[in-house]
Amino acid sequence: MPTATPALPIIGPDHWPSPADFAAPPTAADHARWAEADRAARPQRLARLRERMAAAGVDGYFGLRWEHMRYLTGLPFDESEVTGAGDSGKFLVTLDEVYVLADSRYTIAVRRDAPEAKVFECYNALADRWPELMATAGVNRCAIEAMTIPHLVWEGLAAAAPDVELVPIEGWVEDGRQHKEPSELERVAAACAVADRALASLLPSIRPGVTERELALDLEWRIRTAGGDRLAFDVACLAGPEAALPHGQPGDRPVKRGAVLLFDYGAQVGGYRSDMTRTLFVGEPTARDLGVYGLVHASQEIVFDRLNEAIPLAQRGTPLPVGRELDALARSVIDADGRWPAYGHGLGHGIGLAVHELPGLGRRSPADPLPRRTVFSVEPGIYLEGETGVRIEDLVAIDVDAGRMDLLTRFPRDVVVVGL
Amino acid sequence: MPTATPALPIIGPDHWPSPADFAAPPTAADHARWAEADRAARPQRLARLRERMAAAGVDGYFGLRWEHMRYLTGLPFDESEVTGAGDSGKFLVTLDEVYVLADSRYTIAVRRDAPEAKVFECYNALADRWPELMATAGVNRCAIEAMTIPHLVWEGLAAAAPDVELVPIEGWVEDGRQHKEPSELERVAAACAVADRALASLLPSIRPGVTERELALDLEWRIRTAGGDRLAFDVACLAGPEAALPHGQPGDRPVKRGAVLLFDYGAQVGGYRSDMTRTLFVGEPTARDLGVYGLVHASQEIVFDRLNEAIPLAQRGTPLPVGRELDALARSVIDADGRWPAYGHGLGHGIGLAVHELPGLGRRSPADPLPRRTVFSVEPGIYLEGETGVRIEDLVAIDVDAGRMDLLTRFPRDVVVVGL
Repeated sequence: MPTATPALPIIGPDHWPSPADFAAPPTAADHARWAEADRAARPQRLARLRERMAAAGVDGYFGLRWEHMRYLTGLPFDESEVTGAGDSGKFLVTLDEVYVLADSRYTIAVRRDAPEAKVFECYNALADRWPELMATAGVNRCAIEAMTIPHLVWEGLAAAAPDVELVPIEGWVEDGRQHKEPSELERVAAACAVADRALASLLPSIRPGVTERELALDLEWRIRTAGGDRLAFDVACLAGPEAALPHGQPGDRPVKRGAVLLFDYGAQVGGYRSDMTRTLFVGEPTARDLGVYGLVHASQEIVFDRLNEAIPLAQRGTPLPVGRELDALARSVIDADGRWPAYGHGLGHGIGLAVHELPGLGRRSPADPLPRRTVFSVEPGIYLEGETGVRIEDLVAIDVDAGRMDLLTRFPRDVVVVGL
Repeated sequence: MPTATPALPIIGPDHWPSPADFAAPPTAADHARWAEADRAARPQRLARLRERMAAAGVDGYFGLRWEHMRYLTGLPFDESEVTGAGDSGKFLVTLDEVYVLADSRYTIAVRRDAPEAKVFECYNALADRWPELMATAGVNRCAIEAMTIPHLVWEGLAAAAPDVELVPIEGWVEDGRQHKEPSELERVAAACAVADRALASLLPSIRPGVTERELALDLEWRIRTAGGDRLAFDVACLAGPEAALPHGQPGDRPVKRGAVLLFDYGAQVGGYRSDMTRTLFVGEPTARDLGVYGLVHASQEIVFDRLNEAIPLAQRGTPLPVGRELDALARSVIDADGRWPAYGHGLGHGIGLAVHELPGLGRRSPADPLPRRTVFSVEPGIYLEGETGVRIEDLVAIDVDAGRMDLLTRFPRDVVVVGL
C-alpha cells in the first residue's frame, strides 16, 4: 500500500535560491588558515600512523596513494598529477622521519609543499633505489599499501632488498582520515557552498533545447571561476530517461520540457571535495515524476531524522548508527511504498580529500558505528530504465562532541521547476 | 664555443596565426567514421593479442588498464571514469571471447559501447567472482597486467582459484598500441588542430597582468567548446621563472612584460590525445631568452631533419632511428653550444589514447628502432631555475610505407610575441 508522503513545496523562478543565499567563496586568508591547520595537524596524523606501525611491529610505511601523500606530507597531488609523476610523491614514514621521493621535475615542489619531509631523489627506478632508501631510513620491516602498489612493483621491491620484509597492509591511513579535523569539515562545507552557488546561478540558463553537455560545461565553469580549485569529479548532467543511469555522462541530448534533469557534481576547495545531486524538473512535473521524487525525498529525510535523534544519545554513550543500517532504513521507505524499486548502489560514502572514502553507507560496508566527527553523503535514488531517474544527494557532517548534525549542502531539496 | 644559430623570424600581432589557419573541428560524421574504424580494427587488435597469448601458452588475458579497455573492447573509459568504476570495465580476453565486467551502473553502457563483448556482472567483489569467471570462460592459465593490478588483488585472485595459474605480464597491448592505425593518426592530428586553433584564438587575450590560472582556464574553455572531447591533461601555463619548472601548475601569478610564457597542453578528440608546448614572449624578448629559444629550436630541428632523412632510407630497408639516439642528438646540440644545460627529462614520448605511451624517446628508452607508423612528441627544453624556461613541443607522425613524416602540430615554432 503506497505510503502517503506529504506534498513537497514546488519552487518556481520567483522562489529559486539565489547565489547570495550561500556562503561566499573562500578568500586567500581562508586558504592560508587551512594550510596552517594542516601543518599543525600533520604531527598528530603521523603519530596516529606510527602507533599503528608500532603495534604491527614495522619500522617503515611506504605510501603510494595521493590522498595519503597530501594528508601526511602536504604535497598537493591529486589523480591528475600522479598519472605523469612516476615515483615522485611516493613516501616513506619511519618512526622519526618522512621521506618523499622526487625526480628533477618535482624536487622544488616537494621542498616547498612538504617542508617537514626529506627529499629522496628517484628517477622512475624505484626497485633500483629501494635498497638505498631502506638503508638510509634504517627500515627492516616495511608496511606497504597493498591495494595500491602494483603486483609487479611489489615483486621488484621484494627482490631488490631481500633482507627487508614487506608487510602488505590496507586502510591504516584511510581509517584515520574518516575522523575529520574541524578545518577539514570547514573545507568540505566551503566546497559545498561553491557547488550550491554555481547551481543557483545556472538555473536561469536551463531552457528546453540546451544540451546536457552545454549545461555540464557551464556549471563546471561557474565552479572553477568562483572559488573551486577544480571539480571534485566530472559533472553528470542527465536529462529525462538518461537520469536512470547512475553513472551516465552528459551527451549532446537536448533538455526536454516535462522531463527531469539530474545534476551530480562537486567542487574541490583547499583540496577537499563536495558531492551533491539535485534532480530538477523542466516545466510542469508529471505526476509520476513527482511521486518518485517525493519518495526519494522521504527516504532521505528519514535518515536525517535518525541521525538527529542519534547524536544526543551518542553524547550519552549510545553508539552511533552503523552505515549499513542507515542504508537499510532509507531503502525500507522505498520498499514499503512498493511502487518503484530502490536504488542499486549504496546510500552514501564518506568524503574529504577523495570523493569516496570511509565511512561507507552501503549494504556491504563495515559494521562499525559512524565516526563521532565525520562527513558523508546521503543519496537515495529511484531509477526507472528508459523512463526517468531521481536521486537527491546531500553531504551531512556530524560532530558528537559539539552535539551537531549539519547539512553542508544547502541547495533546497524541494521540487525545483526550471525552464518554464 | 657557442654555435651560431640563424635568427628566427619574430612574429607580432600582424602575423599571428589565425584560428582559420588550422583544420576545422571534427564533425559528427568524423566521429561516426572513427567509431566504425575502431569496430573494424578490433578483431585485428585482438588477433595480435591472441597470437601473443598463444606464444606464451596462456588461454586468458585479464586486463585492467582503461586504455586497453577502450582499444580492445570499445568501452570509452578514461582515468576519470575508472576512479569510481570499481571492477566495471575490467576485461578478460580468451582465445575466442571477450568478457567485460560491469556492475548495475555500467551494464547498459557496456552493452552499447562494447557490443562484441559479453557482460559479466560483478559488484566490487572480484575475488569472489573470479572462480566463476575463469570457469565460464574456460581459462586455466591467465595472463594479468601486473604493472596495473594491485598486489593485494593479485593475492586475492591467486587464493580464490588456486587451480588457475596467474602469469604476470606487461606491455603486450602497449607494444601493439604504438603501431598506429590510419584512423588513430587522424584523430591525433584532429586533436592537434583543436589545440592549435585554441591557442591561436587566445593570443589577443594575453596581456600583462592576466594570471596564469586565468589563461589556462580560458585556453581550456576554447578547447572544450570547439571540438575537444576533453583536455588531454591539465593545462600548464607558466610565466617567467615558473617556466623553469617542467611540471609546474598555473598559479595566481600575473604575466609580466619582458618574460616568457609557456603553455603545455593538449586536447582529446575521439578518445585520442594531443600534446604541445609553445613558449611565447610577452613584449620585447630579452637577448638571453631569444638565445635560449633559438637553441631549443635548433635542437628540435635537428631531430626533424634526421627523421626526414631516415624515412626514405627505411623504405629501402635501413632500420629507423632508435628513440634514445634522437634524444642524444637533440641534447648534443645544446651541450655543444655550452651556454646552458640541456633538459633533464626525455626528448619525447608516444601518444594516442594515453598522453604517454610507446615509443619512448628518453635516455633509458628501449633500444628498438621507432615503429614504422607511429606518432610521438619531440620536446627539448632548457630550464634556468629562478630565471626562465623554454620548451618547444610538437607531435610528429611517421609512416614509412607512405614515405611520410608529418608535423601534426601546426602552430608556428617561430618567436611569437604577445601582449605588446
